[in-house]
Amino acid sequence: MITKLTELLGIQYPIIQGGMAWVSDSNLAAAVSEAGGAGIIAAGGRETDWVKNEVCRAKKLTSKPFGVNVQLMAPNKDEIVDMICEEKVAFVTLGAGNPIPYISKFKQAGIKVIPVVPNVKLAKRVQDSGADALVVEGMEAGGHIGVQTTMALMTQVIPQVDIPVIVAGGFADGRGVAAALVMGAAGVQIGTRFMVAAECSVHPNVKQKLIAAVDTDSVVTGQLSGHGVRGLKNKFTENFLALEKQATPQDELNRIAAGTNRRAAIDGDVENGMVLAGQCLIPLKEIEPVKTIVEAIMTEVRQTLTKASNMI
Amino acid sequence: MITKLTELLGIQYPIIQGGMAWVSDSNLAAAVSEAGGAGIIAAGGRETDWVKNEVCRAKKLTSKPFGVNVQLMAPNKDEIVDMICEEKVAFVTLGAGNPIPYISKFKQAGIKVIPVVPNVKLAKRVQDSGADALVVEGMEAGGHIGVQTTMALMTQVIPQVDIPVIVAGGFADGRGVAAALVMGAAGVQIGTRFMVAAECSVHPNVKQKLIAAVDTDSVVTGQLSGHGVRGLKNKFTENFLALEKQATPQDELNRIAAGTNRRAAIDGDVENGMVLAGQCLIPLKEIEPVKTIVEAIMTEVRQTLTKASNMI
Repeated sequence: MITKLTELLGIQYPIIQGGMAWVSDSNLAAAVSEAGGAGIIAAGGRETDWVKNEVCRAKKLTSKPFGVNVQLMAPNKDEIVDMICEEKVAFVTLGAGNPIPYISKFKQAGIKVIPVVPNVKLAKRVQDSGADALVVEGMEAGGHIGVQTTMALMTQVIPQVDIPVIVAGGFADGRGVAAALVMGAAGVQIGTRFMVAAECSVHPNVKQKLIAAVDTDSVVTGQLSGHGVRGLKNKFTENFLALEKQATPQDELNRIAAGTNRRAAIDGDVENGMVLAGQCLIPLKEIEPVKTIVEAIMTEVRQTLTKASNMI
Repeated sequence: MITKLTELLGIQYPIIQGGMAWVSDSNLAAAVSEAGGAGIIAAGGRETDWVKNEVCRAKKLTSKPFGVNVQLMAPNKDEIVDMICEEKVAFVTLGAGNPIPYISKFKQAGIKVIPVVPNVKLAKRVQDSGADALVVEGMEAGGHIGVQTTMALMTQVIPQVDIPVIVAGGFADGRGVAAALVMGAAGVQIGTRFMVAAECSVHPNVKQKLIAAVDTDSVVTGQLSGHGVRGLKNKFTENFLALEKQATPQDELNRIAAGTNRRAAIDGDVENGMVLAGQCLIPLKEIEPVKTIVEAIMTEVRQTLTKASNMI
């Protein structure tokens, strides 16, 4: 399948894997790249050395293109940017901060730059600043989210820019990927579905909780303060939302939330940690190799597009 | 175009018009039905006599099928249900309350029943109770909203039921409608785009504010308390959200919100009223006849599906 994304990155399928903090490492990224998509190592919350090691490890695991997701509010962001420019991964996705000052540096190093943007205005701005593609992420995604949904972003952003638009949030099967392509997306970014991949090193308790979850099991904390984070309903989110309703000061809320992603993802405490996950949970039925997941999705994409062609 | 929805209602195009309280009257409903979709008169907040008059008026304006949206928490709901069963409109959509006790009554009167449901569990339940179709509405929609998005609902609900699934929320152009059909939806429900129709009787100030709005101009009040309502950002929403952040008691918030939809839609006070609207605002570019809107959307649906068939 050829799209503007497969051409840009030189990959087989229009699927990139979400850069999930404390989850997306060299194992998962290399597996997704080997399966024909493009994997991503998440630098968020990590030491620069850890990211460098993972990049080197991924290079040994696959000769195919993979990327790094950089959180631009991280204290070590400049160190990480320098390291990536030396190590020369295929592409970066840039979130949580202003990507524009970094675009030319990455491009000079021969690295494709794909900022994550929340609206039409910023989509146009990163295009004008030389971004190679962009990601728009609907608020059905897991982790830190904006306010627009995937359908609203696809409707409004795609017609306004010429560079490839990758859509994230709510994609867990081939029907969704087909719908995004039909709307003019160059590809999709999939996060939560890859958390139940065999190659994903997230704690097994998280995988089991994701597999057991249904459509109504995610919830957003921090929405009223403009710092929405989506994860699975549990003891932590119940307590946190109760504190939000009581107008608990933001500093106190930040203190309580700190470290809770790691507590779930690494330590496996899926009740007192925050299990970051998107809204599409029913398609997560079992632990499967990445290749099986990607092939199942792409088979369904082709079936769905074939059905669509019969509608006319 | 033939889908399970066009067959169920005997209509030309798989588009129904959203039942928007204080906005959807016989003029708008009849225009949508005449254009090949199915119009809906909104009973929410209205006296039974007003609804009856609008139903009778719509029958004079069109011989094509139209429906009524019934809010099942309204104090006059039983009166309205009886009236509809006597007047025998083609179908009802049922929101804001438990639809199950009403299904058999409508069916005995020969009226198709289409409940609005928020998740997979209730979708299965209304199917098992004899609903003819159902609507799932993503939180990108305007007015009272749930928490799941259109993409999450399409991904998770459509494969779980056999009756036609109509998807609402975020549909304002033909690409979106094509994407929904590709995912297996039987049709879509469009609200906000029809608010700028020439035949829509909403106050002209509302139409101008909608046309001026961009993708970032909607906001949700009441989200933390589980009573989310989406509308355009203005003086009212700014004040209301500030009060929510201060943990203002729910009774006080309810008192402040009461009547604000009408204040905007009827009185035209688009700063102190709540201008209910969905997230897809950029496609609202000018005031056009309903027929022009519907034809433009359907032309784009066909173009989009043709492109999709070339992707395989």
